[in-house]
Amino acid sequence: MSDELKKHIASAFDRDLEGIQAQILKMGGLVEAAIHDAALSLESRDEELAQKVVAGDKAIDELEELLNEEAARVIALRAPTARDLRVVLSVMRMSANLERIGDLSKNMAKRTSVLSQLAQIEGSATALRRMSREVEHMLKDGLDAYIRRDEALARDVIERDRDVDQMYNTLFREFLTFMLEDPRNITSCMHLHFIAKNVERMGDHVTAIAEQVIFLATGQMPHEGRVKEDRTSSDPALSANAGKE
Amino acid sequence: MSDELKKHIASAFDRDLEGIQAQILKMGGLVEAAIHDAALSLESRDEELAQKVVAGDKAIDELEELLNEEAARVIALRAPTARDLRVVLSVMRMSANLERIGDLSKNMAKRTSVLSQLAQIEGSATALRRMSREVEHMLKDGLDAYIRRDEALARDVIERDRDVDQMYNTLFREFLTFMLEDPRNITSCMHLHFIAKNVERMGDHVTAIAEQVIFLATGQMPHEGRVKEDRTSSDPALSANAGKE
Repeated sequence: MSDELKKHIASAFDRDLEGIQAQILKMGGLVEAAIHDAALSLESRDEELAQKVVAGDKAIDELEELLNEEAARVIALRAPTARDLRVVLSVMRMSANLERIGDLSKNMAKRTSVLSQLAQIEGSATALRRMSREVEHMLKDGLDAYIRRDEALARDVIERDRDVDQMYNTLFREFLTFMLEDPRNITSCMHLHFIAKNVERMGDHVTAIAEQVIFLATGQMPHEGRVKEDRTSSDPALSANAGKE
Repeated sequence: MSDELKKHIASAFDRDLEGIQAQILKMGGLVEAAIHDAALSLESRDEELAQKVVAGDKAIDELEELLNEEAARVIALRAPTARDLRVVLSVMRMSANLERIGDLSKNMAKRTSVLSQLAQIEGSATALRRMSREVEHMLKDGLDAYIRRDEALARDVIERDRDVDQMYNTLFREFLTFMLEDPRNITSCMHLHFIAKNVERMGDHVTAIAEQVIFLATGQMPHEGRVKEDRTSSDPALSANAGKE
């Protein structure tokens, strides 16, 4: 292959990549809005907004399909080098994570209508919105880190997921207390716990995106030292405490 | 490129693909065992077996890493045709689904120890094991369908996921009833509900694998007509019923 041809292919690849990255950002923007609107609809009991989130998930799914097709087309057409291939594959993984966050936002919005009919649990919607807000900001920073290949920012995002886990653990304990105090709170709390867990999982997906950024920037996955735990599954204090009543 | 060379590349690709498929089956076998052992550890309160499941998840994660690297290597080295590329990409998606099912099994096993310290909820562990058993069989059939490119079997697997969703809906209602009857059941039921939801999500991942099989066999995703719902998020009866107490 002539140098001229190689250069031509390389720049065609760069153009393809730019297109793919633009789509990832577009998808990221839609997902950020979905998290935001889902949490807001819950807090303000706005069923219309919740419907909008549910309906909007289709566009996110379609973008993921499109991105995968485009990525496959680029791989087949350009036969990228190992390094470039890594970029394309990371985009595919990131889009899968974004799609999952979109799904989780949709699931959250879906509960707005049921929760609107149930007893309100003091402070819970606000706490959930604060938690969602943190995840939304983490996602925004994760995508910025991706564009700038900013390893430090990506590590910061991963670090902040601990706060989200902590917020989840606190909420879990609060919901248990509310349920034990008054059985009429049980149904509401089951749904709210569900939503809290969904948001906690969104945080995990954002973390996975940040890990891809580190992988791209350094060639290594930051597995070691990652603390990512829903402590309610293993911390006897969280369960024993509540079980005493 | 000479015909001879093309044929040589084609057979090298086939060999690579066989290697990848063997690894997917190996991974599938580990995941089937993880589902089985996680459910069994829960039913028999066998903390040692639960520990084994938790520890075993690492091997599943490593297989996914390996499969992704191998798939990327094949794409870079063989520059497969559009059709072959589709096979490689579907393998990557399937391995991601298997990895998630492995994670969910691990999460289930992790709760064995906490649940062993709490009030037993009559029949729940058996019901959960029945549900897990169904998912385990669906996974086995899904992987068989993949190997044989058996569209009919894949559709059967997708169809059976409705039963799993139904089992989940029934359990959700039962847990609410137990909680309302006696607040001492609340903590157990929170954990059990969690596990039931995890198993329901495993079923969704198996469905996604079966969809990949249909995609490979027909070139089209079977999106239309798919009914996949956790009805507890939207069915007023499920909530209103429980909320009345």
